[in-house]
Amino acid sequence: MNTSVTLLAGGVGGARLAHGFARALDALTCVVNVGDDTERHGLHVSPDLDTVMYTLAEMNDEERGWGLTGESYATLTQLERLGEDTWFTLGDKDLATHVVRTARLRSGEPLSAVTAGLAGALAVTARLLPVTDDPVRTRITTPSGELEFQEYFVRRQHADAVLDLAFDGIEDARPAPGVLDAVTGADLLVVAPSNPFLSVEPVLGVPGVREAVRSTAARRVAVSPIVGGRALKGPAAQVLESLGHDVSALGVARLYAGLVDVMVIDAADEALAEPVRDLGLEVLVTDTIMGGPDGRERLARELLALA
Amino acid sequence: MNTSVTLLAGGVGGARLAHGFARALDALTCVVNVGDDTERHGLHVSPDLDTVMYTLAEMNDEERGWGLTGESYATLTQLERLGEDTWFTLGDKDLATHVVRTARLRSGEPLSAVTAGLAGALAVTARLLPVTDDPVRTRITTPSGELEFQEYFVRRQHADAVLDLAFDGIEDARPAPGVLDAVTGADLLVVAPSNPFLSVEPVLGVPGVREAVRSTAARRVAVSPIVGGRALKGPAAQVLESLGHDVSALGVARLYAGLVDVMVIDAADEALAEPVRDLGLEVLVTDTIMGGPDGRERLARELLALA
Repeated sequence: MNTSVTLLAGGVGGARLAHGFARALDALTCVVNVGDDTERHGLHVSPDLDTVMYTLAEMNDEERGWGLTGESYATLTQLERLGEDTWFTLGDKDLATHVVRTARLRSGEPLSAVTAGLAGALAVTARLLPVTDDPVRTRITTPSGELEFQEYFVRRQHADAVLDLAFDGIEDARPAPGVLDAVTGADLLVVAPSNPFLSVEPVLGVPGVREAVRSTAARRVAVSPIVGGRALKGPAAQVLESLGHDVSALGVARLYAGLVDVMVIDAADEALAEPVRDLGLEVLVTDTIMGGPDGRERLARELLALA
Repeated sequence: MNTSVTLLAGGVGGARLAHGFARALDALTCVVNVGDDTERHGLHVSPDLDTVMYTLAEMNDEERGWGLTGESYATLTQLERLGEDTWFTLGDKDLATHVVRTARLRSGEPLSAVTAGLAGALAVTARLLPVTDDPVRTRITTPSGELEFQEYFVRRQHADAVLDLAFDGIEDARPAPGVLDAVTGADLLVVAPSNPFLSVEPVLGVPGVREAVRSTAARRVAVSPIVGGRALKGPAAQVLESLGHDVSALGVARLYAGLVDVMVIDAADEALAEPVRDLGLEVLVTDTIMGGPDGRERLARELLALA
């Protein structure tokens, strides 16, 4: 199929939909959040980029949703013995990605070039772009104080209420080479069923990206990450709630109204189609729960039909 | 035993004798070569320090002489897949050492402090000192051109003739904190049966170290790494030969004459005792081939008896 698709993505939800598109067409560009990038043991880790990359390479651990299949943890066990904090799980194979990324970043390559090299080595044919080569770091204000993103997400298992969010560095971040063109030049622009605040906002918030989404001639579609009032994965429901939004596909639609043309909601939320239409959005009601590769491809093809 | 021993050491030979001393006494300081330190995949690797550390921790692979027992290679295999040169073998557990060392060096800790931290985490009680915190890098001139040390040693398996040696940075290197005191304050100073040119010279060549060896009140002993005209391990024989020295305990003794008081040669070389004495050196003829831990301790105790 010749339609070109650009997907704005966070981690798991974005990765699964990216996989569906990659099976359906050639011209896929994923613009990925880097707000949850972190440094562990001196290594630069890009969890969302890696989840999308590993999923596209069909090497990811489908059960956990992150990391690689068939992982071992010999290095992590030894890191612990050497006195390192090891609450952030890093597998032996996964570590190779971070070691190479770190070495290439330190040698002066931008993250986008490093990402292209890694994805190419893993035979990923979709284009994988960090939204920016500049550092953006998500910080979460909770009742227990301000937390670095992975501290909130992994160490404390996103159990804290999110009172506020900040994306350090985002005002000065420039879109990575290719990002704006990918948004303005696509036939179909898709906001993945990723966390609107933790994954999508730090993509849209990079200066120029939201404006490109507003001005693109592409058909613009967002998929709700909330189904039946719950998030399929991760803390999207809690974050919406604690920031004062409806925990529903309607609450998500309100966030994207004015930015996208079509809201995709799950069949379980059919009753919300009318109020979403009242926001001025078209609505596609379908099965949004992607199971395995076939389900991902089916959803991707339904979205392609909207273009 | 209350005797304090300082050992000038390279890799395997130094590590084994260090292990013998550590079993025999408490007050052991190892001053270790860093000329073969290298950067692999952006990680700082200190092969000699690690061989001594792992041996003292009784975690080293005795058969190979380097690396850790029970190693796996999941990260290295993945590094290769990502397009990295992987001729320098790094095990998963071993990588943890390099990851931690690199992170701590980048955060500003000197190598000596990093080394103390790593050794402490592995319950090594002997003091392990890099001869210097400054970068010293051994380069080898061969008929095929100049090679970085590990290129010569590992990649080309020390098959090239050594025409010349250089230790980049050594003129500006300062002895690490504690090194000079360890040399001047010891009861017994031992030059390990390590390669005189590749391992011992970049230790002695750090400004101040050779002078400290000359002026110390310690009893000074060197153990020949050449037995019966051959090196027990590594390229000591070839290097001696290609640099124009006798490939024998006598050739080694000539290098250390004026610097040490006692030359320790193997029983197989008893015939050389007289010519070594003629250089003005005392001679101890004994079994210098350390097998397992007991053999190492036996040799260490024989050397202690010289103090």
